[in-house]
Amino acid sequence: MLSVVARSALSKYRRLWLPSHSLARAMSSSSGGPTSPYTTLAISHPAESVTHVELHRPEKLNAMNKAFWREMVDCFNEISGDPDCRVVVVSGAGKIFTAGIDLMDMASDVLQPGGDDTARVSWNIRRIITKYQETFSVIEKCPKPVVVAIHGACIGGGVDLITACDIRLCTHDAWFQVKEVDIGLAADVGTLQRLPKVIGSRSLVNELALTARKMFADEAKSSGLVSRVFAEKEAMMAGALEMAGEIAGRSPVAVQGTKINLIYARDHSVPEGLDYMATWNMSMLQTQDVMKSAQAAMEKKSPKTIAFSKL
Amino acid sequence: MLSVVARSALSKYRRLWLPSHSLARAMSSSSGGPTSPYTTLAISHPAESVTHVELHRPEKLNAMNKAFWREMVDCFNEISGDPDCRVVVVSGAGKIFTAGIDLMDMASDVLQPGGDDTARVSWNIRRIITKYQETFSVIEKCPKPVVVAIHGACIGGGVDLITACDIRLCTHDAWFQVKEVDIGLAADVGTLQRLPKVIGSRSLVNELALTARKMFADEAKSSGLVSRVFAEKEAMMAGALEMAGEIAGRSPVAVQGTKINLIYARDHSVPEGLDYMATWNMSMLQTQDVMKSAQAAMEKKSPKTIAFSKL
Amino acid sequence: MLSVVARSALSKYRRLWLPSHSLARAMSSSSGGPTSPYTTLAISHPAESVTHVELHRPEKLNAMNKAFWREMVDCFNEISGDPDCRVVVVSGAGKIFTAGIDLMDMASDVLQPGGDDTARVSWNIRRIITKYQETFSVIEKCPKPVVVAIHGACIGGGVDLITACDIRLCTHDAWFQVKEVDIGLAADVGTLQRLPKVIGSRSLVNELALTARKMFADEAKSSGLVSRVFAEKEAMMAGALEMAGEIAGRSPVAVQGTKINLIYARDHSVPEGLDYMATWNMSMLQTQDVMKSAQAAMEKKSPKTIAFSKL
Amino acid sequence: MLSVVARSALSKYRRLWLPSHSLARAMSSSSGGPTSPYTTLAISHPAESVTHVELHRPEKLNAMNKAFWREMVDCFNEISGDPDCRVVVVSGAGKIFTAGIDLMDMASDVLQPGGDDTARVSWNIRRIITKYQETFSVIEKCPKPVVVAIHGACIGGGVDLITACDIRLCTHDAWFQVKEVDIGLAADVGTLQRLPKVIGSRSLVNELALTARKMFADEAKSSGLVSRVFAEKEAMMAGALEMAGEIAGRSPVAVQGTKINLIYARDHSVPEGLDYMATWNMSMLQTQDVMKSAQAAMEKKSPKTIAFSKL
Amino acid sequence: MLSVVARSALSKYRRLWLPSHSLARAMSSSSGGPTSPYTTLAISHPAESVTHVELHRPEKLNAMNKAFWREMVDCFNEISGDPDCRVVVVSGAGKIFTAGIDLMDMASDVLQPGGDDTARVSWNIRRIITKYQETFSVIEKCPKPVVVAIHGACIGGGVDLITACDIRLCTHDAWFQVKEVDIGLAADVGTLQRLPKVIGSRSLVNELALTARKMFADEAKSSGLVSRVFAEKEAMMAGALEMAGEIAGRSPVAVQGTKINLIYARDHSVPEGLDYMATWNMSMLQTQDVMKSAQAAMEKKSPKTIAFSKL
Amino acid sequence: MLSVVARSALSKYRRLWLPSHSLARAMSSSSGGPTSPYTTLAISHPAESVTHVELHRPEKLNAMNKAFWREMVDCFNEISGDPDCRVVVVSGAGKIFTAGIDLMDMASDVLQPGGDDTARVSWNIRRIITKYQETFSVIEKCPKPVVVAIHGACIGGGVDLITACDIRLCTHDAWFQVKEVDIGLAADVGTLQRLPKVIGSRSLVNELALTARKMFADEAKSSGLVSRVFAEKEAMMAGALEMAGEIAGRSPVAVQGTKINLIYARDHSVPEGLDYMATWNMSMLQTQDVMKSAQAAMEKKSPKTIAFSKL
Repeated sequence: MLSVVARSALSKYRRLWLPSHSLARAMSSSSGGPTSPYTTLAISHPAESVTHVELHRPEKLNAMNKAFWREMVDCFNEISGDPDCRVVVVSGAGKIFTAGIDLMDMASDVLQPGGDDTARVSWNIRRIITKYQETFSVIEKCPKPVVVAIHGACIGGGVDLITACDIRLCTHDAWFQVKEVDIGLAADVGTLQRLPKVIGSRSLVNELALTARKMFADEAKSSGLVSRVFAEKEAMMAGALEMAGEIAGRSPVAVQGTKINLIYARDHSVPEGLDYMATWNMSMLQTQDVMKSAQAAMEKKSPKTIAFSKL
Repeated sequence: MLSVVARSALSKYRRLWLPSHSLARAMSSSSGGPTSPYTTLAISHPAESVTHVELHRPEKLNAMNKAFWREMVDCFNEISGDPDCRVVVVSGAGKIFTAGIDLMDMASDVLQPGGDDTARVSWNIRRIITKYQETFSVIEKCPKPVVVAIHGACIGGGVDLITACDIRLCTHDAWFQVKEVDIGLAADVGTLQRLPKVIGSRSLVNELALTARKMFADEAKSSGLVSRVFAEKEAMMAGALEMAGEIAGRSPVAVQGTKINLIYARDHSVPEGLDYMATWNMSMLQTQDVMKSAQAAMEKKSPKTIAFSKL
Repeated sequence: MLSVVARSALSKYRRLWLPSHSLARAMSSSSGGPTSPYTTLAISHPAESVTHVELHRPEKLNAMNKAFWREMVDCFNEISGDPDCRVVVVSGAGKIFTAGIDLMDMASDVLQPGGDDTARVSWNIRRIITKYQETFSVIEKCPKPVVVAIHGACIGGGVDLITACDIRLCTHDAWFQVKEVDIGLAADVGTLQRLPKVIGSRSLVNELALTARKMFADEAKSSGLVSRVFAEKEAMMAGALEMAGEIAGRSPVAVQGTKINLIYARDHSVPEGLDYMATWNMSMLQTQDVMKSAQAAMEKKSPKTIAFSKL
Repeated sequence: MLSVVARSALSKYRRLWLPSHSLARAMSSSSGGPTSPYTTLAISHPAESVTHVELHRPEKLNAMNKAFWREMVDCFNEISGDPDCRVVVVSGAGKIFTAGIDLMDMASDVLQPGGDDTARVSWNIRRIITKYQETFSVIEKCPKPVVVAIHGACIGGGVDLITACDIRLCTHDAWFQVKEVDIGLAADVGTLQRLPKVIGSRSLVNELALTARKMFADEAKSSGLVSRVFAEKEAMMAGALEMAGEIAGRSPVAVQGTKINLIYARDHSVPEGLDYMATWNMSMLQTQDVMKSAQAAMEKKSPKTIAFSKL
Repeated sequence: MLSVVARSALSKYRRLWLPSHSLARAMSSSSGGPTSPYTTLAISHPAESVTHVELHRPEKLNAMNKAFWREMVDCFNEISGDPDCRVVVVSGAGKIFTAGIDLMDMASDVLQPGGDDTARVSWNIRRIITKYQETFSVIEKCPKPVVVAIHGACIGGGVDLITACDIRLCTHDAWFQVKEVDIGLAADVGTLQRLPKVIGSRSLVNELALTARKMFADEAKSSGLVSRVFAEKEAMMAGALEMAGEIAGRSPVAVQGTKINLIYARDHSVPEGLDYMATWNMSMLQTQDVMKSAQAAMEKKSPKTIAFSKL
Repeated sequence: MLSVVARSALSKYRRLWLPSHSLARAMSSSSGGPTSPYTTLAISHPAESVTHVELHRPEKLNAMNKAFWREMVDCFNEISGDPDCRVVVVSGAGKIFTAGIDLMDMASDVLQPGGDDTARVSWNIRRIITKYQETFSVIEKCPKPVVVAIHGACIGGGVDLITACDIRLCTHDAWFQVKEVDIGLAADVGTLQRLPKVIGSRSLVNELALTARKMFADEAKSSGLVSRVFAEKEAMMAGALEMAGEIAGRSPVAVQGTKINLIYARDHSVPEGLDYMATWNMSMLQTQDVMKSAQAAMEKKSPKTIAFSKL
C-alpha cells in the first residue's frame, strides 16, 4: 500500500523537484562505501542542486577518526565552491549517526602532541584543537544551508557537528549525549559555544553538558534542538530531501544571503546585524531572481518552477 | 451606538482596570477608517494610558504600501513623546493581520531606485533599506511596551513588524510566514536579526527563513514566538487590552526602564548589562513611585490604584 | 537522630553514589538553623564533594535582608576556594523558596542612601546596586556548578538569584514572579539581564517582567526556565542531590572548565568562544583525568568510580 | 565687490582646481550674516562640490545657543542628501572659532528640565543630552568628509564639535580647552568618547579633560589633534579649500566609502572591519569611476580632471 | 623639622592652591618609611584632598614583592572609599621608580604554584595571574584620577603599573623597559593590554615589547607615554602636586565622572560610549556643583575657590 | 674606513648573532632572483632563526601581480609552521619597496569577475576581496614577529601590507601613499582598518586616505607609522637585522605569546584582553625558558646566549 502511495509520490516528486521515498530509501541504506577521495564520507547528488554527505564508517559506528577531521574540511570547501550545489543533507550510514570521536585513532594526536616542555606541548595542543574546530566551522562558513538528519545515537563530537548545521531533524529512536565530561575534558570543538545558541533552555544545556546524560528525541524536539521528529530513518530521509528540495528550489542569492545573515545576526547586536544586512542587500537586491520570483508569484507559480542562474 | 458601548465600557474599565469584552469587540471590528493624518493606521485610546494602533487597509489585507512605512515612524515618534500613553496595542483591521509588503506600490521604490552605475544604484538601495528598517526599529526605540495581537495571516514584512514588538499574542487561526526567499531576497528589515533572539529553537528559525513554510498558532506558541493563543480575535483583543491595562497601571518609570534595559541586555553581555542597569537606576530609584508602590503593597492594594505622575 | 539517619545515608551513598530519600528528607526539612558565621544561610555537606547552601530565615519566608546580601558573597567566595567542594545545591528552608528582598530591613539602605545633592545620592545608590549585583554574580563566578531547587514561591530577588544558577529544578507547587515593577522599579540585580538568556521565549520574558504576573511550574518547564519538575520538595531534593552526585563524580577539571566556558560563550560570539576554548584546553587537556576517564570508559566503569585529584 | 572677487576666483579655480587666496580671504572675513533659514550658520559654496559651513554668531563668539544645536542637525542632514556637495569645510566667523556652549541661552533647557521627581527630571535630562549629542554625531553620519579649520579659541562644546569632524587644521594662535569640569560636569556630547580615539597620547587626553588646561597649536600638532598648522586664518582657509578641492576632485564613491569604512573600523575589531569592507566594496567596485580613474591614471591625468557622476 | 616645613607649605598652599617646592622636596626625599599597615607603601596627604602613595622599599629599588601586590589592592580600595581624597599621586622612593617584580620573593608563588598535574598547576597559575592583574586594575577602578611621577628606571611590572594610571609625568633621567621577554614570558599583568591604548605608535609598542629595549624620557614624551618631562625629581613632584591641585580643586562629581567615562570610552565604540555618558549624566547634572561652578565662572573666580561637598 | 669598522663588527656579529653590514649589503642588493617555488618573493635566512622575505619583481617595481597575492599566503603559512624561524624581515628588491597593486595583471580578475547579474558579480567580487585581504592577514596570523623595512616608495597595496606587519622601519627617502581613492575605490585590503590603529593622529589618517597625498619619512616617524628612520637602505637592512636578532635571541614562547596577545588586545577591551592573557599564560609560564632566562639574568648574561628549544 505504501509503495503505491510512494510511486504516485515518485511521479509527483520528479515533476516537483521532490525526492521519492524510494530515493530516500536508497539514501537511508548505505549500499555503497565512501566516495573517493574520501574514506569516511560518501557523497551523492540525490536531486538537482542537492548534495548528500553521508558519514560512512558504519562498521565503526561512524566514529570520527583522523581522516574524518581532514575530509570534512575538504568536502565542505569543495561544496562551498560548487555552483551545482544549493543545499546539503548530512546523515550517517549504518546503525547510528555517530559514536563521536574515535579515541583509539586520535589518541596519539591529541594526547601525545609532543613538545619539549609544558608550554610547547600546550602550543601544539592548541594548534590541534583549532584545526579540529575548523572541521565543524566549515559547515557554518559554507553559504549553502545544511540539513542534518540524525538517527540512533549522536554522541560527543556528533553534537559538535550537528550544532554547526542549520536545520536538525531526527528519528524517534535518536538520542544525544554531550559526552566529553565523561572522558575528563570540557567539550572543545563547538558544543559549549553553539548548543546554548541553538536551544532555548539554558538550564537544560547546562544539565546536558555537566552530567553527560542522554537526551531523547522528544526532549530534543520540545527543547528546539531538532525542528522535526520522524518515525524512522527512511521517513526522515524523505523529509530531509523534501526540505532540501524546498530550499534548492528557491533563489540561491536569497537562500545563501539568508544563511550568511542569520549567522552574522547570532554573533552581533540587532543594530549591527541590521547595518550589515542593508550593506549586503544593496547589491543582492539587484538580482534578476527578484523579478523572476515576483513574476512567478503573480502568476501563482511555485518559486521551484523558476530557472535561477548559478551562484 | 458605538459611543454608548464605549462609554459604558469606560465606566466599567474605571472600576476594574480591565477592558470589557464589548470594548474589545469594538476594537476588533474596524468600523472606522484610518485616523488623520494617517492613511494606513487607525489610532485610538481604548483605555486610560493605552494607545491602540490598528493597521488599517483592510481592503488590501493591510499590505504595507509606501505611506505605511512613513506613517509608522511618525506614529511611534509621536507615541514616544506622548506622556498620556504608557503602553501600545498593535493589531490589524479586517480579515488578516497583514499580507506583508505591498509589492505593487513599492516596486518603483525598491526595484528601480535610480543611479548612474551599479555603485550608485547600490548606494540608493542601501538608503532605502535603512529607512525601511527604521520603520520597525522605532517600535523598539519607543520606551513604551508594545503588545501585538495577530489574527489570520502574518506574512513577510508582518514578521519583521511583530518581532520588533515586546509581547506577541495570536488567535488559533493565525499563521506566520517568513516569505522573503519566495520573492528572491533575504529578509532585510529585521526578521533575520530579531527572530532568532525572540524564539529559542535555531533549527526552527532557519527552517522558517530558508523554506518560507507557514507556521501555525500551536507551533508559534510552543516555540515561544507568542506567549498566548486565544480562540478568536475578540477574545484576543480583550486579552491584549487586559495585559495593556496591567502594564499601564504600573509605574511608568519602572515599566519603561524595564523595556529599555531588556533591549539593552539583548545586545550586550551580562556584565555590560548589569553595569548599564546600575547606572540607569542610580537616578530612577529616586522616584516617588517606589514609595507610592511600596506603601500600596503594604496596604495590600494593587499598584493599579496608584496615581503615578506622567513621564 | 538526624546524625544516625545521616550516617546510614552516608554509607548508602558511598555504595550508590546516589543520595537516599531519607537524606533528601533530612535536607528538605530545616531542622537546624543557620550555620555560623552565617545568620541567613545553613551550609551542609550532604554527600562527598557536594555543598548544600540553604536560604535559612524560614520565619521570614527567606526574605533577603542586609545580612543575606553580604553572607552570600562570603559563602560563595569560600566555596570557590574549597577544594573539597565540586558542586553546590541551593534551596530554601520552610514554606517557600524566598519572598525576595526584605523591604523593611533594606529600606534604610536602598531608599535613604544619603548624599548632599541628587548627584551624590545617585553615586551612593549606584555603589549599593553594584554591591547587590555582586551577591548573585558570585554564583556565576564560582567555577563549581550550582543546582538550585525551588519550591513554593520564588519572588523578586529570588528570580535574580536563580537565573544566576546553572541548573534549575522546581516542585509542582512552585511559582515565579518578577515582582519589581509592582514596587515601582526596574529589576536591577540580574533578572533583566539573565532571564532572556535563560529561557527561549522573549515574548514571555517581557510579559513576566512588565506585568509582574506569576508563572507556575508547568510554564516554567515548557519555557525552559527549569529543566525538571518534581511532585514535592523531598523528591526534588533527592533529584537535586542525584544530579549533584553525577556532577561531583566527574573530573573537576572537565566540569569546572565546562561551566567557565559555557558562561564565556553566552557573552561572546561563537568564533570568540571557540578561540577562548582552545586557549583554555591547551593546558587543561594535559590532566591525568583524561587518561583516568578514558581507561574507565574502556573498562565500562562509571567515571564516578575514579578518584580524581582535588582542584 | 565681493561678487567680482568671487567670480575671478571662480575662473581661477576652474583652471587650477585650487582656491585662490582672495577667495580664502573672502571666506575668512565674515562679511555677510547667517544664511536663511539658519540664524547661527552661514552656508556657502566656495568651489564646485564644496560646501562651507560657517559658525556665524561672531558678536557672541559663536557661542552655541539653542538655535545652533537644532540648525546643525538640519544643515548636515541637508548636506548628506545634497548630490552637489562632496566635501564640507567648517570654520568660525569673527575673532575665534567658538566659545562653546551659550550657558545663558541654554540654562533653562539643561538646568531646569522639569519633571515631578528626580527620576522624571533625569529622564528629561537624558532626552536633552541625547538630542545634543546628535548635533555632532550628524557630522560623523554625513558620508561627505568634513574639514574643520580652527582659529583663536575652541572651547568646551567646540572640542566636541571638532572631534566629530574628519580632518582638523588650525592657526598658530589657536588654542583648545576641554572646559566642562570647570563648570561642574563631565563633558557629555562627545569629547570624552572621541578625543582619545583622535589623538595618540592617553596621558595628554586625561590631563586635558581632568584639569581643563589650554592646549596651544604646537601641542595640538605634535599630539596629532590637528594635521596642519597655518600662520593665520586666511592661509588656513586657503589650505582648507585646497584640501577640500583635492577631496572633491576624486570619485565620490571612493571618498564616501572611505569615510564610512574608516568610522566603522574605529568602532570594530580589524577582522570585523575587513568583513564589512568586503561586503561594502562588492557593489561599490562596480562603479564606472574605477574605469574612469584607471584610464586617467594611465594617461597621467589628475583624477580631478574626471567628470564623475553625482552620488 | 619636617613638620615646620610642612606647616609653612600648608599655609602657602592655602593661598596659592599650589604646592611649594619645599613641600615637593619633602615629598621627593623619602625621610620616613612605609606607613602602617603597609610595609611597601608610604601614604601621606601633601595637600587638601590629595593622597600621595609612595612605593617605599628604596633599599630594594622598590621591587614588587608579595606584600606589595596585596597592599596596593588594600590601599586603592581604601582610597576609592575615602571622601577626603579627590586625586592620587604615585611615585617611588629612593634612586629609581621601580625595578619591577621582585623575582626572589615571588618565585615560590609564581614558579612553583603546586598542583597534582599540569591542568591543576595551570589552574593555580591562572588564579595567581588574575590576582596580580587586579593589583593594577584597582588603580583604574578607583574613580579618583591617579597622577604617576616616574624618575630613574621603570622596569617590567613598573610599566604595567604606570599604564594603569591616568596621567604620566617623568624626569629627564627616566627610562622605561618592558622587560618580560627577557625573562622568558609574555607580560601578563597589563602592559600588553594597556600600552597600545596609551601611546599612538603601534610599531613602537611592538618594538618595546618584543625586544625589551629601553625607552628614554624624550621618546616617552614624543610618543605620548608621558605628557610632561621635568628636569629632576623635585621639580617633577612639584609639577605633580600642582596638577593634582588643579584636579582636586574642581567638582569631584565632574572629575570622577570624567575618569569613569574616559575608561568606559576606551573599551567601547563611540555610540556605546555616548549612550552610557547620557545615562550617567542624567543624574550627575543634577549636582549643586554645576550651579556653584557656573556662578564662580560668571564672577571670574577659579573653580578652586568653591567649597564642593564630599563625594 | 667604514669597511674596517664593518669588518670588526662582522666578527663581533658572528659571535653575537648580529648581522654584519656586508650581510646587510648583500641583503639590500637583490643579486639573485625569486626563490623557487615563488616567482615574486626571494626567501633567505640571513641569520639563525631569521627569515628574510624580499618582494622580488624589481623590474616591475615589485608591483603586486596575481602570483604575489597567492605566494604571500603560501610563504607565510610555511613560515608559521617552520620551527627554525623565530622572526621575519620583509623588504623590497630594487629601487622602491613597492608600487602597489599591478593593475594590468589584476584587471581581469578584479574588474571582470563574471556573473549573470549584479548580485552574482558582487558575490564573486566579495570572494576575491576576501581572498586578497587574507594575503596580508596571514602576516598578522603568523605568530612570529614581522619587521618590515621600507625604502623609496610604498604605494597603495604596499600600505596595506606594512600596516599588517609588527614593526616598521624606513629610509630617509621613503614615502607612503594611500593611493586607492585615486583609482576610484575605497582601500579594501586592510589600510582603512589597520592604519588608524597603527598611528595616533586620526586627522592625519583621514587626510592621507581621503586625499591620497604622499607622506614622507619625517612625518612617518613623527606620526609613529615607523619607529626608526635610517640614512639609506643598507643601514636600514643592518638595523632591521639587528632588531630581528634581538627578537630571535629571546624565548620564542615569550615572543610569540607577546605578538598574539598584542593583536588580541588591539581588538578587545582591556578587561577582555587581561582575561585572555591570564588564560594564555597559565600554560605558557610552565616553560623551561623562564628558568633559563631567569638564571641568565642572575648571571648577567644576555638572553641571546641561551639555547631555547624550538617552538
